[in-house]
Amino acid sequence: MDLKSKIRVIEDFPIEGISFKDITTLIKDKDAFKEAVDKFVEDLKGKNIDYIVGPEARGFLFGAAVAYVLGVGFIPVRKPGKLPGETSIDEYQLEYGTNSLEIHTDAFEKGERIAIVDDLLATGGTMLSAAKLIESLGGEIVAMEFLIELESLNGREKLKNYYTNSLVKYDR
Amino acid sequence: MDLKSKIRVIEDFPIEGISFKDITTLIKDKDAFKEAVDKFVEDLKGKNIDYIVGPEARGFLFGAAVAYVLGVGFIPVRKPGKLPGETSIDEYQLEYGTNSLEIHTDAFEKGERIAIVDDLLATGGTMLSAAKLIESLGGEIVAMEFLIELESLNGREKLKNYYTNSLVKYDR
Repeated sequence: MDLKSKIRVIEDFPIEGISFKDITTLIKDKDAFKEAVDKFVEDLKGKNIDYIVGPEARGFLFGAAVAYVLGVGFIPVRKPGKLPGETSIDEYQLEYGTNSLEIHTDAFEKGERIAIVDDLLATGGTMLSAAKLIESLGGEIVAMEFLIELESLNGREKLKNYYTNSLVKYDR
Repeated sequence: MDLKSKIRVIEDFPIEGISFKDITTLIKDKDAFKEAVDKFVEDLKGKNIDYIVGPEARGFLFGAAVAYVLGVGFIPVRKPGKLPGETSIDEYQLEYGTNSLEIHTDAFEKGERIAIVDDLLATGGTMLSAAKLIESLGGEIVAMEFLIELESLNGREKLKNYYTNSLVKYDR
């Protein structure tokens, strides 16, 4: 299946000049959603993953389904103030603006093997922030999985110390 | 499995007097997460569901996995400004504060059969708002599924015109 054909592109959202990749049209298509999840799972099988981590909110959509199919637990990284337990926090740059992410400090044990799943690799800022949080707690990042990669933003270069995989590529 | 034992209760979060049910401890437990998803699926099988709808953000966790396993598409309802296409919006009361939800107006066709999945039934405000959005677009709400029900808040009474199911019950 051509997963790219299931993604709707909306220009100038959320601000002028951004060519927004709308994944809601993909996830409402049962065959496309299943194929995307199955491709992530296929890439992660055999890597002895202990947990899937997904950034709020779109990372939850693919990450939770991948965790279920792989038979592992899911750990959220969230915007500040959403997680009720003790957290670690990291602030980072977005493609537009800044953001912070939190993770529960007791989310996993040192040395456990983590794959991060998100919808979009743009500049790589969100993923690098999630990786810093995970590594600060002693987790080992085995893979970073993306539905979409915006190649001209060079996020893959920022994440060059990690294994990355994306299912659909756009120039921008 | 006793799913309730996998949920961590944190007092006075996010404000004093709230006994917060932390589901992150359940979803990081692979067996508990699988059992919760499978119980939702079991309850929805045979109901000819076309789509799962899940409210941002915790509704994405269970909803997306349930959609995958049922073999249907997933449709998000989100906080304002997050969905890039044309949307319908509804404002509603929370257990603490107010909120608004949006849905894409082209999310599904009239007459399609929808189940809504969320983590928590408190006052029922979020779910009733999601239901209003879905019905305003001509969708038929077949079931409302919750991981947790806070019984003393009488959300079930507010949703009495709908089929509701919850996996874990607390008094408050």
